[in-house]
Amino acid sequence: MKIAIVFGGSSYEHEISIVSAITMKKVLKNSELSFIFVDKNRDFYLIDSDNMKSSLFSSGKYKKSKNITLKSGGFFVDTMFGSKAIEIKVALNLIHGRDGEDGKIASLMEFYKVPFISPRVEASALSYNKLYTKFLAESLGVKVVEYQHLCKNDERKLTLSYPVIIKPVRLGSSIGVSIIKEESQLEYALDVAFEFDSDVIIEPFIDGVREYNQAGTKSKEWELSIIEEPQKEEFLDFEKKYMDFSRDEQVSKASISTELSDKIQETFKKIYDPLFLGSIIRCDFFVVGGEVLLNEINPIPGSMANYLFEDFEAMIERVASNLPKEHTIVIDYQYIDSIQQAKGKA
Amino acid sequence: MKIAIVFGGSSYEHEISIVSAITMKKVLKNSELSFIFVDKNRDFYLIDSDNMKSSLFSSGKYKKSKNITLKSGGFFVDTMFGSKAIEIKVALNLIHGRDGEDGKIASLMEFYKVPFISPRVEASALSYNKLYTKFLAESLGVKVVEYQHLCKNDERKLTLSYPVIIKPVRLGSSIGVSIIKEESQLEYALDVAFEFDSDVIIEPFIDGVREYNQAGTKSKEWELSIIEEPQKEEFLDFEKKYMDFSRDEQVSKASISTELSDKIQETFKKIYDPLFLGSIIRCDFFVVGGEVLLNEINPIPGSMANYLFEDFEAMIERVASNLPKEHTIVIDYQYIDSIQQAKGKA
Repeated sequence: MKIAIVFGGSSYEHEISIVSAITMKKVLKNSELSFIFVDKNRDFYLIDSDNMKSSLFSSGKYKKSKNITLKSGGFFVDTMFGSKAIEIKVALNLIHGRDGEDGKIASLMEFYKVPFISPRVEASALSYNKLYTKFLAESLGVKVVEYQHLCKNDERKLTLSYPVIIKPVRLGSSIGVSIIKEESQLEYALDVAFEFDSDVIIEPFIDGVREYNQAGTKSKEWELSIIEEPQKEEFLDFEKKYMDFSRDEQVSKASISTELSDKIQETFKKIYDPLFLGSIIRCDFFVVGGEVLLNEINPIPGSMANYLFEDFEAMIERVASNLPKEHTIVIDYQYIDSIQQAKGKA
Repeated sequence: MKIAIVFGGSSYEHEISIVSAITMKKVLKNSELSFIFVDKNRDFYLIDSDNMKSSLFSSGKYKKSKNITLKSGGFFVDTMFGSKAIEIKVALNLIHGRDGEDGKIASLMEFYKVPFISPRVEASALSYNKLYTKFLAESLGVKVVEYQHLCKNDERKLTLSYPVIIKPVRLGSSIGVSIIKEESQLEYALDVAFEFDSDVIIEPFIDGVREYNQAGTKSKEWELSIIEEPQKEEFLDFEKKYMDFSRDEQVSKASISTELSDKIQETFKKIYDPLFLGSIIRCDFFVVGGEVLLNEINPIPGSMANYLFEDFEAMIERVASNLPKEHTIVIDYQYIDSIQQAKGKA
């Protein structure tokens, strides 16, 4: 299958998106891949598969690649003799953070009628913002970790007891996140978080909480991954993060009861359907006192959480063949014709 | 000032967007306007100002106009000798309904760094969907009309008493909306609404409720319109709707107490700031028992609600000079460099 891997973007996670894309080259072995790089200026380049090494990007050499324009019907390579469409069955949105997860790339693809795997614009706007994720979960009857929302200009008064975790509402990959144990650390942690965002959420930091990750999608049927219990570290440093976005080997599933596993899967389905149709997402759950709480939705998980699925490549094909269709709107100018007729009669 | 008016779109409201755009030509008399038409296939055309008549579009003659491509830095006209940027200070998003109000046009503009007046992608996703508008209002402490949410596959059982109003969650301009007085009308009204959307909200229909419209924006300071008490009709037929989107004469303000007017303005500000910065919106409020309830947010109101402002054109200039800035993200490949160094050492 011909797949375009769209990666990079004007995002704090630009560099790990490159790592994710290189991982896709290893994982999607039987597919014909076109690598479409969005640079920090948001210019598009077609990267030769043989050149997919991180140094191509850090050195700026990618600029020698062919320019691409996105317009109605797809991606077009600019040539001396006009522009030529890149033939693909589907585009895989692999831009982490801004542009990729906030709905912008999804909007571009949908607007220009490029078939794509990614949350659509509405799903993106709700899952990119951790505060709106709470609203969404609550509206679906999914429990969440309790939280407090603070805007930049709000009084910095905590209603929760320490320790707490402070997160900018709109960023992923632990950027701007602090765990603080006492009030003396609060000012600095909030200053850091507000460097990145106008809004933060604060949650109790539950030491040793059981965490489980469930990835999945829906093609004709549900396609749920194994449930993983991720390794815990207070923080990810760059090597750890690199490991995370370059994972391509299947992991073993968490040893939990069928009852808990069913509960996690039911919760995943509630969140996913119908808002996330067309995407492969990973939900991170906490289990507290037997209850499943949504911690976060990863709308574009690192390396697409490929390592949680048995045959990721075959699944991509099934998803590509079952994408949600845009509602057809007939525009026939009946309304303008009626106005003109009415005016003619007057 | 040089302004691009972006209108049309793949939307049920494509035709009234044309009417809105023609109205802008009358209202923005001292500006240099470029009319950028998005046709039903989402191809862009530069329409000559002299040709801005509804028949140009209904006849298909617009296709003889110059093609435009949107890419990093702006709108470009395709010429025989390459492409040339259209010089503008700001673009005004005037696409009603899908594409314009759902965040897609906002995404395109922000992605390609075109300065624009319109709600940004997050504000669009929340205000385009009447259910999410309820979440938003509730999170801001703004009261709303009580409601029931139904998905396509839910049991069709009403928890509200008749009469009720049924609305598809994602459409504007009364499309798919029914007011029903008894249970016998329920099935048909829901069938109609679900023709247009997968989700509907149902609200009590409050006959004779006082309704007030407040439009506004924030440039350096708040710029709030007069408050209008709109004319009530059970439904808008096409001529009424045409009147609404072609309004260009100032209306007189509602005769209400200063206290109520203050309450409406405070509520507007709560909703607007900071989510809607960069846009001119109109909020429609109900007043029931002295309480101000948010009925709907119009993220791209008909003819930009110009008729509610004293000097709309001067305001557009002030808004254009005070648009929200995108957060700058520095991408310097430090992270990839560290990985490479670590690998080199290994």
